[in-house]
Amino acid sequence: MKPINLEMMQCAQQRQNTLTKPPGSLGQLEHIAIQLAGCQGVVCPQIKSPWISVFAADHGIADEGVSAFPAVVTQEMVKNFSASGAAITVIAQQEKAAFEVVDVGVLNDVSPLPNLISNRVAAGSFNFAKQPAMTDAMLRSALQVGKMAVDRALNAGADLFIGGEMGIANTSAATAIISQICQQPIADLVGRGTGVNDQQLQHKQTVLEAALLLHQAEMDSPEAVLRCVGGLEIAALTGAYLECGRVGLPIVVDGVISCAAALVAYEMQPQLKPWMLFGHQSVEPAQKAVFKQLEVTPIMDLEMRLGEGSGAAMAIPIIRLACALHANMATFEEANVSDAN
Amino acid sequence: MKPINLEMMQCAQQRQNTLTKPPGSLGQLEHIAIQLAGCQGVVCPQIKSPWISVFAADHGIADEGVSAFPAVVTQEMVKNFSASGAAITVIAQQEKAAFEVVDVGVLNDVSPLPNLISNRVAAGSFNFAKQPAMTDAMLRSALQVGKMAVDRALNAGADLFIGGEMGIANTSAATAIISQICQQPIADLVGRGTGVNDQQLQHKQTVLEAALLLHQAEMDSPEAVLRCVGGLEIAALTGAYLECGRVGLPIVVDGVISCAAALVAYEMQPQLKPWMLFGHQSVEPAQKAVFKQLEVTPIMDLEMRLGEGSGAAMAIPIIRLACALHANMATFEEANVSDAN
Repeated sequence: MKPINLEMMQCAQQRQNTLTKPPGSLGQLEHIAIQLAGCQGVVCPQIKSPWISVFAADHGIADEGVSAFPAVVTQEMVKNFSASGAAITVIAQQEKAAFEVVDVGVLNDVSPLPNLISNRVAAGSFNFAKQPAMTDAMLRSALQVGKMAVDRALNAGADLFIGGEMGIANTSAATAIISQICQQPIADLVGRGTGVNDQQLQHKQTVLEAALLLHQAEMDSPEAVLRCVGGLEIAALTGAYLECGRVGLPIVVDGVISCAAALVAYEMQPQLKPWMLFGHQSVEPAQKAVFKQLEVTPIMDLEMRLGEGSGAAMAIPIIRLACALHANMATFEEANVSDAN
Repeated sequence: MKPINLEMMQCAQQRQNTLTKPPGSLGQLEHIAIQLAGCQGVVCPQIKSPWISVFAADHGIADEGVSAFPAVVTQEMVKNFSASGAAITVIAQQEKAAFEVVDVGVLNDVSPLPNLISNRVAAGSFNFAKQPAMTDAMLRSALQVGKMAVDRALNAGADLFIGGEMGIANTSAATAIISQICQQPIADLVGRGTGVNDQQLQHKQTVLEAALLLHQAEMDSPEAVLRCVGGLEIAALTGAYLECGRVGLPIVVDGVISCAAALVAYEMQPQLKPWMLFGHQSVEPAQKAVFKQLEVTPIMDLEMRLGEGSGAAMAIPIIRLACALHANMATFEEANVSDAN
């Protein structure tokens, strides 16, 4: 992992203290500007070219009836991303962010389509209620798909990476990963995903508890957890985050699925943490366990529960404003404003 | 107060339910778009021309030593607003919002300056530890100053009004107003403002408790509370909000001082409520009492405590994104995406 520039963070902190406002009164906006100063190695960071890759894959676990929507929605939404009809694509356009959707393994190949990168590892992951979600080879390939997305972003001059995801049943995979790594019971973490009812929620909990028992002996490392109960798009996100840390590209992490990937990446490489910002507090309870484990605070809470990278992308204008305030506010000296009594 | 268009809100709600996302999964963004549909009387609202008026005035109560900063900072910051060096002006530029600062009564007249409207009612309010903050005439004039700002905004084609404030010691006035109207003890509401220490905080509490006792008999209406323990810029904000409700211009309310003004305006005209959005959760504890009284939820919590309208203005891009998502996302039918099981 590339180390971030701690000296530049100190310079940025000093600059914050001279700006015409009570010290600390810009709250999180100060922390964002200071963290990005460390990432970019400049006193006044800027976000000019955010990049969004949405990774899509299907999940064998969907066969267990853990989602409110049918699995076919994954590929239908890939087409919707390609046609700019989805939430994340509307935000990308509004915020002038580069956008691509990456097929890591949806059930049916829908390529070619505009803005679609076809990097199919398999036609979905296996049903982890019955067998590991992936083979070793699938996991390695999916991690590589994420790495390649970051390399495309870098080649295009991106200065901020957002990974999103689409995959019916993927809150089940994310919750299983988080439960296993944070050692918290499924009952405390399971959520409604796209909107299961009370009975389905109970069923989802039972399925996930049984699955974790099934794979317990095998899950002896973060990678093994990802392979046993994860998914192809979650593995791609993990690979992408690790590559961001290696090359030094700051990340905005999205909701519970992205957070599961960020958790695995962090457990593999804890030095990744300073490259990560967290865009929003999702409605899914498992996400809070990740925030606690990583000791981080999300930028916003808009009561969203959509995924796709949408919560992270909503934070783009907030991050840009944090940088603008940091760079463009007058200092007490410049403005001849008196300091505190 | 102008009624908002409930039928159009229903149409907007129906549209939200057809967009390619699980119902409700955009959380607060859905509520924002639906509320603005009611305000603008169209299914797909847009924010093209936000307007920011920052009202500045000094406070006699500053003589009691209730602030971390000296009173001279009010007029120094007016100059900083005029020169675009303050947080609110940086946000206004970044978000292409119209900006003006209105002198309702700073200690010394600093006019003429660019972007400064001189509407001086008095050279500050009186020290409400000893006498009412304003006379009836001062209150009426200050309310009128706020109304005139909204009329300027309307004439310029504004479609969103943000009122900000600057006035050393004004968290004291705001906290006294909120305590009196919400009938909650000062001890539960008093905060550090621009950053008083523990001893100063205790002193601030004692001063405010005594002041509320002093004026208790006189404070028999929301206007009387505003006159006895308010301030000129808070009265201007109140007048501005009431005018927004009369003419039908949606408002984003800022932090604890703006919330005190919004509370007074709401108590005078409860039908004002649907015209108000609340930009952010401030660090000041008194603000929560207003949210509870009005039964509203702020859009963001960035741990800000700056005032100036900065927390409200930070919400502009979020509101714009809410409108863009509402207008530009594909429906399930348009995108051929399957609905829930």
